[in-house]
Amino acid sequence: MKKHPGIRGKTTRRPVAETWRPESQAPAYPWHYGPPAAASIRAALGRIRAMLEKHSPAHLVDCRTGRRITGFSRPRPHADIAQGLFRIISYEWGVVHCGMMLAAENTGDARYRDYTAKRMQLMADATPWFGSFLKTRPDGAGGPAFMTLLHPRSLDDAGSLCAAMAKAHIAGLAKGLPPIINNLIAHIMERQHRAADGAFARNRPVKNSIWLDDLYMSVPALAQMYKLTGRENYAGEAVRQIMLFSKRLHDPATGLFAHGWFEDDTEHPAYHWGRANGWAMLAMVELLDVLPADYPGRDGVLALLQGQIHGVARLQDGTGFWRQLLDRNDSFPETSATALFTYCIARAINRGWCSALARGPAALAGWNAVASRIDARGCVNGTCVGSAMAMDPAYYYHRPQSRLAAHGYGPALLAGAELLPIIESGRVSAYDGAAQFGRMLRED
Amino acid sequence: MKKHPGIRGKTTRRPVAETWRPESQAPAYPWHYGPPAAASIRAALGRIRAMLEKHSPAHLVDCRTGRRITGFSRPRPHADIAQGLFRIISYEWGVVHCGMMLAAENTGDARYRDYTAKRMQLMADATPWFGSFLKTRPDGAGGPAFMTLLHPRSLDDAGSLCAAMAKAHIAGLAKGLPPIINNLIAHIMERQHRAADGAFARNRPVKNSIWLDDLYMSVPALAQMYKLTGRENYAGEAVRQIMLFSKRLHDPATGLFAHGWFEDDTEHPAYHWGRANGWAMLAMVELLDVLPADYPGRDGVLALLQGQIHGVARLQDGTGFWRQLLDRNDSFPETSATALFTYCIARAINRGWCSALARGPAALAGWNAVASRIDARGCVNGTCVGSAMAMDPAYYYHRPQSRLAAHGYGPALLAGAELLPIIESGRVSAYDGAAQFGRMLRED
Amino acid sequence: MKKHPGIRGKTTRRPVAETWRPESQAPAYPWHYGPPAAASIRAALGRIRAMLEKHSPAHLVDCRTGRRITGFSRPRPHADIAQGLFRIISYEWGVVHCGMMLAAENTGDARYRDYTAKRMQLMADATPWFGSFLKTRPDGAGGPAFMTLLHPRSLDDAGSLCAAMAKAHIAGLAKGLPPIINNLIAHIMERQHRAADGAFARNRPVKNSIWLDDLYMSVPALAQMYKLTGRENYAGEAVRQIMLFSKRLHDPATGLFAHGWFEDDTEHPAYHWGRANGWAMLAMVELLDVLPADYPGRDGVLALLQGQIHGVARLQDGTGFWRQLLDRNDSFPETSATALFTYCIARAINRGWCSALARGPAALAGWNAVASRIDARGCVNGTCVGSAMAMDPAYYYHRPQSRLAAHGYGPALLAGAELLPIIESGRVSAYDGAAQFGRMLRED
Repeated sequence: MKKHPGIRGKTTRRPVAETWRPESQAPAYPWHYGPPAAASIRAALGRIRAMLEKHSPAHLVDCRTGRRITGFSRPRPHADIAQGLFRIISYEWGVVHCGMMLAAENTGDARYRDYTAKRMQLMADATPWFGSFLKTRPDGAGGPAFMTLLHPRSLDDAGSLCAAMAKAHIAGLAKGLPPIINNLIAHIMERQHRAADGAFARNRPVKNSIWLDDLYMSVPALAQMYKLTGRENYAGEAVRQIMLFSKRLHDPATGLFAHGWFEDDTEHPAYHWGRANGWAMLAMVELLDVLPADYPGRDGVLALLQGQIHGVARLQDGTGFWRQLLDRNDSFPETSATALFTYCIARAINRGWCSALARGPAALAGWNAVASRIDARGCVNGTCVGSAMAMDPAYYYHRPQSRLAAHGYGPALLAGAELLPIIESGRVSAYDGAAQFGRMLRED
Repeated sequence: MKKHPGIRGKTTRRPVAETWRPESQAPAYPWHYGPPAAASIRAALGRIRAMLEKHSPAHLVDCRTGRRITGFSRPRPHADIAQGLFRIISYEWGVVHCGMMLAAENTGDARYRDYTAKRMQLMADATPWFGSFLKTRPDGAGGPAFMTLLHPRSLDDAGSLCAAMAKAHIAGLAKGLPPIINNLIAHIMERQHRAADGAFARNRPVKNSIWLDDLYMSVPALAQMYKLTGRENYAGEAVRQIMLFSKRLHDPATGLFAHGWFEDDTEHPAYHWGRANGWAMLAMVELLDVLPADYPGRDGVLALLQGQIHGVARLQDGTGFWRQLLDRNDSFPETSATALFTYCIARAINRGWCSALARGPAALAGWNAVASRIDARGCVNGTCVGSAMAMDPAYYYHRPQSRLAAHGYGPALLAGAELLPIIESGRVSAYDGAAQFGRMLRED
Repeated sequence: MKKHPGIRGKTTRRPVAETWRPESQAPAYPWHYGPPAAASIRAALGRIRAMLEKHSPAHLVDCRTGRRITGFSRPRPHADIAQGLFRIISYEWGVVHCGMMLAAENTGDARYRDYTAKRMQLMADATPWFGSFLKTRPDGAGGPAFMTLLHPRSLDDAGSLCAAMAKAHIAGLAKGLPPIINNLIAHIMERQHRAADGAFARNRPVKNSIWLDDLYMSVPALAQMYKLTGRENYAGEAVRQIMLFSKRLHDPATGLFAHGWFEDDTEHPAYHWGRANGWAMLAMVELLDVLPADYPGRDGVLALLQGQIHGVARLQDGTGFWRQLLDRNDSFPETSATALFTYCIARAINRGWCSALARGPAALAGWNAVASRIDARGCVNGTCVGSAMAMDPAYYYHRPQSRLAAHGYGPALLAGAELLPIIESGRVSAYDGAAQFGRMLRED
């Protein structure tokens, strides 16, 4: 039978009077919906790389003269890393380097690798040089940034860069990193303040405060050290910390984590800050990346990850963003948390830790949201600036958002890089207009 | 004692300076609050009827010439139902006919009945005629709309019109419907794809997907067949499907249903789409309408209905609407879901399945919201267009809303028609300005 | 080592092109954030006092002539309390007087005490005078306001003023209050309508309705009578009512209370009205203020209070306000509920019933929100007017907000007065920009 020229197949002129103004029958998404072109992901990653290459300098200067320092022939007590828009010795740069290394792998573009290699080599070379003439770390502020590598005093100083350095060392991107890596991991394992049961703790804002952020500032480093050395105590400590933090901060009903906990108090604030939840999720992903399938406790970590993915999937907003406070839809859409969740869900899909069919479109919507904030210069906009643990909602609601908050760059690189092979596989489509990873399942 | 001319009884001139701008002490509702005039409900229903009478033609045309076909004397391979703003052979029209029949009953106006009788008779006459010369249903799109009655291939094709035809047959509105009814129910009972445990399933977006919508596309037809034939297997299948769907989609903590489920996956999206929840509630109401009080499993269905009513009552918004995603107050207020819940709650009140006192004002606010969207032409505005099962929130948030989405018309007719006798009873009032069905309880 | 002139210590000129528009790195709070100046609290309280002194007259007038009545020498059947912007014989004034007495204590300013003393003495003098010539209370409206003191017919008439009069009597602020106090408490203990199990109930909107508001309209009076007389039956009744109400209205999952309950129905509305939750919390605080630490049932009341504080802390909005419906962030920010929670949390901190560290900043944000609505005239703006128990959300969402709703004044006085010594102690600070009561803990 021939195609019927009837109702379904053709456009019939409808008997509508002039006064019937048309209504659009097409969705008006605020930005791209559904699978993006792979080229657009590559371009976005490339813009970020070029921007950071330019604005996060990889050389030393004399802080008094501003002049560039090129050799390590003599002590230079006023030397420090050059300051661009960003400085590269801080925990945010651990994430950036992981993003660059993943982007190198998934795009095949060596410039991502070079970005990290150059900066890793500088740290490997300059850190012992500084150590040769700067014997003590001064109390309080001041001192060159390298002091945090020589004398780490917090998990912020140690964990994120330690993990990135270990990855760079394993990948052969720089020489001479092991002494720094060993110094940083020693802080984590031996010198970091802990609660009575061993959970990593800070003495701010008060004695024995547990910060969710600290999962990221410790677990990925422990995971990489386990990968590097094969020593069980690193992996065991990582699993243990996740459980100790979860016991305090995790809400099984929602899968979310509270930002903080007061070990010496009986009441605790319950604000589910987006980025700290992103750090927690990333910490679990980094650990699962290295744990053998039968590692003791791995199932518990995986269950926590899956529960958190389920929980955040329920709270993603209508534009694909997650909010500054995850369960407060009148708090602002925040870039770094969105990028972190996007990366982690995409990674979990690629590793088989969660369902591509059920969770893939959430990752896709998350990337489209993040991409809407990567501007023509390569800036990642809309990231919450560094934040304290607070005991009222007003603080979280009113954090400034800035392209100079470095926390957004690494997660954006990770998210795009992890999604790229999924998109390039051509297995993401749409059905009835809804984004769908179903073809992956149907063909697999 | 005479009325005291004091504080409470009179308006005292207050010593307020000029600079005290007055504040209104009266609520500024966005539209009518409290019991509407019965005449306004009758008028709204009448406008919808007149609009549909005009724009959903009840005759055939030759699709190549556009000319009207008046007899069934010879094969006309290019015949089809005439296309107005709406076409009458689709599941949405099953709801419209139920609404028209209820409106006829509760207004006493025969024109509602005539609307349905004319269209039912056309389907009764034309379907076998088409069958006499169109022997097979083509793959894919195309073919006259009647092909879905001759060769139903999905629950969308079968259940809603089957239920309406059975009601029309029982009411004596048309002759010759039983062969079509039998063909449609046979699809539901015998040919529809099912999951391993017998739950109705689709193979879109992927194999063995469960769509909440399918409760409405099956259960009301089964319920009417039980009423028509007295055969237990229809009622048993209806109760069973509700339980099979609920096992997968129902959240006991909130009373809501998720839109979809992947039978072959371990994770599922959890978006509580308004209209599909309305379909589920309507399916339960339609079943309870015909089940004897002691029917096995009826209590379970009633408990689900009461739980869902409780759940949606907690989520009705400040204007009386329900939202596109029921638990997302930043998704748009949606007409069809609001009308469906309004009808179902009003029906449940009238049948004694829920408390008039506790739930009546929610139904009233729901009607006032729906009525605000029935315009002077009789169009029902603000209805979400047809929607797929999606795995991200962005899809649901950005569905277009249109007066040409036919899904709003039947529910609006049902809602107004079911509320009318309640309003006309004069038992709805207000106390301290709050709408109240209390007089019903106090006088009963 | 000298301070290093490097990265952290100095402002480096950044190589940003002209086209880089600056982004603010400072939070833009809508009003003051963090600890306010003690002087600003004192000033706000003073403005309220001056405003009420002027606009809530403390003398009698002849309602027919408008002339002031100065003596009680002969019957004046048309006498009544003078009407300013406010009238002082209503339950809202019980709260105002408690606020004035607390402000007197915590500011040391005798004018707060004088405000209450003058009005208490007027009631003590005029009530028996009215009683000498007005023998019966007429049905329905009308009669001088004093009739509610002579013939209380509801908890609204009795409890709040009874509690304030008992406090004033204990403080020696007026002479002759005991006969009125005894008449009011007799209504509560002996004449108020009750449900079968003894819970205080109303016959509006229907027979045997339980109103959450009634906890405040009874428990504080019972608490003060226990303090005044030492008789166990008052305290026992107070504890019992809290438990009877909680059994019906309290949601353990959220810590919130529903506004109402229909004793003779199986379904109930579940709207968590802000002010009624504030009344419930205040009732518990007033009771705990007088109960010995080992009083039977005290632990249960304390647990309810702590659970409600935890629940409302999770729902405070980003500006420090609580919403008209506590769990609906699109309902309006409401002043009286915010002030009630602020007072109660501050009181609980000062009494050791909850953690200063975990809860203090929420109270601070609450006060800053309330203070933003105390205008230059001393008016407390944005308070929901008197409200019924409703069965739909539209009613609550659209209550007018007014500076003439007296319900905001007493709570604002209480909140500021209770926070003042905390602020003046200098133990509230900020860490990393987040408000913090931590110094209290660290130094204690």
